[in-house]
Amino acid sequence: MHRIDNLQYAKWSEKIFRQMREGNVDAVHATICYHENFRETVANIEQWNRWFEQFPELIFHGKTGDDVRLARESKRTAIFFGFQNPSPIEDDIGLVEICHTLGARFMQLTYNNQSLLATGCYEAEDTGLTRMGKQVVREMNRVGLVVDMSHSAERSTLDTIEYSERPIAITHANPAFWHPALRNKSNEVLKALGESGGMLGFSIYPHHLNNGSNCTLQDFCDMIARAADLMGAQNIGIGTDLCQDQPDSVVEWMRVGRWSKEIDYGEGSKDNAGFPTMPDWFCDNRDFDNIEQGLKNAGLSQSNVVGVMGENWLRFYDENFGPLGGVRENR
Amino acid sequence: MHRIDNLQYAKWSEKIFRQMREGNVDAVHATICYHENFRETVANIEQWNRWFEQFPELIFHGKTGDDVRLARESKRTAIFFGFQNPSPIEDDIGLVEICHTLGARFMQLTYNNQSLLATGCYEAEDTGLTRMGKQVVREMNRVGLVVDMSHSAERSTLDTIEYSERPIAITHANPAFWHPALRNKSNEVLKALGESGGMLGFSIYPHHLNNGSNCTLQDFCDMIARAADLMGAQNIGIGTDLCQDQPDSVVEWMRVGRWSKEIDYGEGSKDNAGFPTMPDWFCDNRDFDNIEQGLKNAGLSQSNVVGVMGENWLRFYDENFGPLGGVRENR
Repeated sequence: MHRIDNLQYAKWSEKIFRQMREGNVDAVHATICYHENFRETVANIEQWNRWFEQFPELIFHGKTGDDVRLARESKRTAIFFGFQNPSPIEDDIGLVEICHTLGARFMQLTYNNQSLLATGCYEAEDTGLTRMGKQVVREMNRVGLVVDMSHSAERSTLDTIEYSERPIAITHANPAFWHPALRNKSNEVLKALGESGGMLGFSIYPHHLNNGSNCTLQDFCDMIARAADLMGAQNIGIGTDLCQDQPDSVVEWMRVGRWSKEIDYGEGSKDNAGFPTMPDWFCDNRDFDNIEQGLKNAGLSQSNVVGVMGENWLRFYDENFGPLGGVRENR
Repeated sequence: MHRIDNLQYAKWSEKIFRQMREGNVDAVHATICYHENFRETVANIEQWNRWFEQFPELIFHGKTGDDVRLARESKRTAIFFGFQNPSPIEDDIGLVEICHTLGARFMQLTYNNQSLLATGCYEAEDTGLTRMGKQVVREMNRVGLVVDMSHSAERSTLDTIEYSERPIAITHANPAFWHPALRNKSNEVLKALGESGGMLGFSIYPHHLNNGSNCTLQDFCDMIARAADLMGAQNIGIGTDLCQDQPDSVVEWMRVGRWSKEIDYGEGSKDNAGFPTMPDWFCDNRDFDNIEQGLKNAGLSQSNVVGVMGENWLRFYDENFGPLGGVRENR
């Protein structure tokens, strides 16, 4: 049984890489870009390359589902790269394949705002996929870069599920039926996602939780059981959105980037501007046993628990990280 | 028996890719950068990706020696990327690994001029490897990006042969004993190259040839036989420097880039500023049979002919395109 966390953005360190091992986490989808352009994203990959060189006994760069299996066998964690914004491809569709070659496996079409490709969940108007958005979705389908709509608006998300030739992901969000928030997803989106073979990763970022930081493990796991009924137990997994050890300056960068001269509080508020406190049952990578136990207590079958904890993401990795129509002969 | 041309910079087209197949060329090391910075080099790779997508039955992106074998089996040509200047890594050592990940397999430390790394063959003073040059050579060794000193000055070349932990290449040049030119190499360099397991690719660019465009095939092949005696028949191959179909504006870009406001004629002259005419026995990729026959006529053994035509480069690819100390577990 493999364990995958399909979204983290920690202030990475040897301490955290060791905690991944202590928590038996075989793979982490790590955000490596919020607002960075291509060259800045490459600089972030260079930093990861240095970590891979420095801690080869703990982590390595994951590119395929088989790397998750290799991680388990060799007691390491495979790190998969993802972007929370299409900023790394700038206005250049050729950068989609370049970024995939450099290891990117997930890319959000939007981060809260309108992008060149689609509409973010904080915009007043949602115009769906743009002209370039359609071209880029096809190119992402072709090379095996997964579309992630976690921060996208409703119509854009439904458009993309329909337009994409391959299943998409919502790597880190929760159902709005449980906690209504702009970032959480409607039943319509969740059903369409499940029917198309897509994946939802449940977030433990407190702003996405019922009762925020005080959300109970039981409440969280009961929600997962309901979501499984709604969209299929094979289409759900974990995407904690763990932002461990990040200073509050980083949440401001995530929210404001360079697009505004004013402070935008995003999911927070003036009185609660920083990173929220994580619930006590999930503080870092060592706490996945709590979730596993919670899922069992919520009545999920053993095979569904195994699916949610990692096997569902692993199947999705196997099917969606390579080129459309199978492996190219020389890759 | 495999056939490899270890340096071309043609104005690529379907016509040329088809000629590669007609000439049974299994692999071509293609220059994809003269003076381009990192982002511009990525744009050139994007152009290659479009050709790979457009002509999958003719060419594909080569990354390992096994790709040469795959090319032969599937009747295609594997295209290996190389830089004639370290400009793509800018001042950033982390870009060495990034460029290798994007497929670069050869990088010159200099193109005629002083670079951040070493001295080019047209400079008055040759100060050898710089501080950054030493760091970058080690990093190239680590990831499997081959050092190419074709356009470098004597001392810098000898320095690098000694300093590098892995054999280096001179992908396109000839012995100065045959045709004295700043771009051709001294016996001292050739001996040191051979003793260190490095490779020389013989150039057919007329400025590197005895009697220029009028050089005879026999003269060229007799020179190869002498070079084999000097530096070892296993350390030599072909690197034609074929610039087929390029307009003369391109040779000016190669020579002047953005570093001068004045015209520099390089190996040419005011009266002979453009691309020189190729000798009649080698006009394009269909003419490799001429060279093979010429080598036999010059008295090379069958195994040495096979080595020069491709097997020597293939062995070098096998040994030098992967990370130092063997294949990383997850690559």
